[in-house]
Amino acid sequence: MKSIITLTTDFGARDGYVGQMKGVILGINPEATILDVTHDIAPYAVFEGALVLKGVIGRFTFPSFHIAVIDPGVGGKRKPLAIRVADRYLIGPDNGLFSLVIGGLKEYEARVIANPDFMAPAISHTFHGRDIFAPAAAQLSLGRDFQEIGPVLERLQMLETPQAIVTRERVTGKIIHVDRFGNLITNIESQNIQGQQISVRCGPVRIGGLASYYCQADPKSPIALINSFDLLEIALPSGNASEQYGIGVGADVEVVFGRC
Amino acid sequence: MKSIITLTTDFGARDGYVGQMKGVILGINPEATILDVTHDIAPYAVFEGALVLKGVIGRFTFPSFHIAVIDPGVGGKRKPLAIRVADRYLIGPDNGLFSLVIGGLKEYEARVIANPDFMAPAISHTFHGRDIFAPAAAQLSLGRDFQEIGPVLERLQMLETPQAIVTRERVTGKIIHVDRFGNLITNIESQNIQGQQISVRCGPVRIGGLASYYCQADPKSPIALINSFDLLEIALPSGNASEQYGIGVGADVEVVFGRC
Amino acid sequence: MKSIITLTTDFGARDGYVGQMKGVILGINPEATILDVTHDIAPYAVFEGALVLKGVIGRFTFPSFHIAVIDPGVGGKRKPLAIRVADRYLIGPDNGLFSLVIGGLKEYEARVIANPDFMAPAISHTFHGRDIFAPAAAQLSLGRDFQEIGPVLERLQMLETPQAIVTRERVTGKIIHVDRFGNLITNIESQNIQGQQISVRCGPVRIGGLASYYCQADPKSPIALINSFDLLEIALPSGNASEQYGIGVGADVEVVFGRC
Repeated sequence: MKSIITLTTDFGARDGYVGQMKGVILGINPEATILDVTHDIAPYAVFEGALVLKGVIGRFTFPSFHIAVIDPGVGGKRKPLAIRVADRYLIGPDNGLFSLVIGGLKEYEARVIANPDFMAPAISHTFHGRDIFAPAAAQLSLGRDFQEIGPVLERLQMLETPQAIVTRERVTGKIIHVDRFGNLITNIESQNIQGQQISVRCGPVRIGGLASYYCQADPKSPIALINSFDLLEIALPSGNASEQYGIGVGADVEVVFGRC
Repeated sequence: MKSIITLTTDFGARDGYVGQMKGVILGINPEATILDVTHDIAPYAVFEGALVLKGVIGRFTFPSFHIAVIDPGVGGKRKPLAIRVADRYLIGPDNGLFSLVIGGLKEYEARVIANPDFMAPAISHTFHGRDIFAPAAAQLSLGRDFQEIGPVLERLQMLETPQAIVTRERVTGKIIHVDRFGNLITNIESQNIQGQQISVRCGPVRIGGLASYYCQADPKSPIALINSFDLLEIALPSGNASEQYGIGVGADVEVVFGRC
Repeated sequence: MKSIITLTTDFGARDGYVGQMKGVILGINPEATILDVTHDIAPYAVFEGALVLKGVIGRFTFPSFHIAVIDPGVGGKRKPLAIRVADRYLIGPDNGLFSLVIGGLKEYEARVIANPDFMAPAISHTFHGRDIFAPAAAQLSLGRDFQEIGPVLERLQMLETPQAIVTRERVTGKIIHVDRFGNLITNIESQNIQGQQISVRCGPVRIGGLASYYCQADPKSPIALINSFDLLEIALPSGNASEQYGIGVGADVEVVFGRC
């Protein structure tokens, strides 16, 4: 049955763990289209995975199945999870990985993967990506009834994400992600600063005003802009702001309203 | 509609930017087959992308759609571009990225992507890969008329590529790329040295004669050969010539004709 | 013709070599589904490739075509190889890359790729992945007769893999692979230690007993467990055992039976 299944993991491609999952999926649903989102999430970085998923899942506006495995607790107490959001399904560990996707949603249905028909015949304690999540997604992609997968899970594990603090004079936030280009992504949303004159401080960086795009200013000066996640970002056009200024995840960011 | 769409970017896979593009493409053309060429082009390295595309596009000898996004000027003045070469389409920024593919061609048609029907409903200033290039390629892959995409672009941005200088006694060139194996790829074409006895100098490296394949000689000695791009290459079989000899992109290479 | 073709290489994605192979495959069989296993095998690391393939091929329990290219001897004397194992086909260099997949098998048929119909029209000396292995796999995926590909190869090159030594008191083995998480994978099989009380030594590491899963114990202590390859593994849950203890491939491992 034609279906789209995506994969998001911290496995890297190198060791073949992802290749094993692809074999399992196609063994169950030979007509599935498998798409790699990424296997380069930093090892055990659940929050990074959650952020990437939030960006990606919003672009799959059609029936699709999304496996995500950043799973330091594999084999332990954390539950294997499947979530239905309209005609999209999220499959992975119940460790907060889907918090940012479902955080703002009212309508979704979460279930524990408990029915052995949705799992491999033999289940390791170390690789549920292959033995539980890949088979569960492949079975769902065949059109099997979601209710069969297992009992409803009332309370999901949610990540505590640092929230920006907004006052009349300023917004204080954090760097929550550094992307491949060394762009510094904050937890400050565009609506927090909308329509205001701003200046931005972060470590040694001082920026007056918001740029519209990367190459707007002198390429040797840092800029602040609203990025494609709709979040405030500090970037060094054609450079790497994180390396240049020694700023990483967790650093404080301050936005002051008014002319600087 | 069944179509093949390839992706070549400097995004890395990690941040999910490529995953977002895949969602956009399949939302427009659910039957597209999406192939990753690479997302590991060095950040902002337009020439590296151009070289990789030249090698790859030549192997797609059938109707296909090729999105390439190495785009430091995103959101600025550079134009979004689509090029038709017979039944193949190239989609990306007009910054020279396609120079090496179309450099030797007489027959192609280049157009600015200007028709909103070929774009996302909302267009960010920072991520045209997702908001312009992915939708444009997906629309074209549905069989839409190329002329609808926007006006003809008469003059494309072309990269100035360093040309080898050929005399009776010698060829002088440059290292233009270092591949994953540390092989040093020059801008000297096979036809520049065809049928001649040669010796090669580059940094501390001295090589007499041309090898036919990597493991022909002592694996601890560097060799020169004509590689799969049809260019002169300096390699250290089972080693990494770039690291061993401290040679990178931009280094001078000299080929002297006659016995050394 | 619908067929599944997987790719396992040491090419990296960056240089577009894999992209070229994908173009060649689809030029021959436009309906092939191409799956990346990995392109991140360490350069020239035939054993690493062999280990990854062993893990992956076992999960493709249906008709499928597996190209693997870790090929330091390309262009030299080593033969291009195709192996049929029931309805699965393995295509790559005859340098031991498939040793671990076929090591335990009695029923397989190995042939030299010799028929030009199964190759590209022009064959480089440096890139048989593109010019021989990709076309051969694509031709086979069209349902062409395996016997046409070339003559039977009676003796394949096999890797000499270090075997664990088992006595009544102990098992001595080696670290044979370090995965992305820094987990130390040994050549000691689960059956070598089945049902025994054990203690494990490797470099500075001392572990008493076998864990069932990664997060079972104090996350700052190393554990030993049977991994998803069914091999003994030393891991540092939520950490990197290889970096923490300075242990890499080739290190000695000792398992002592009885309470420690």
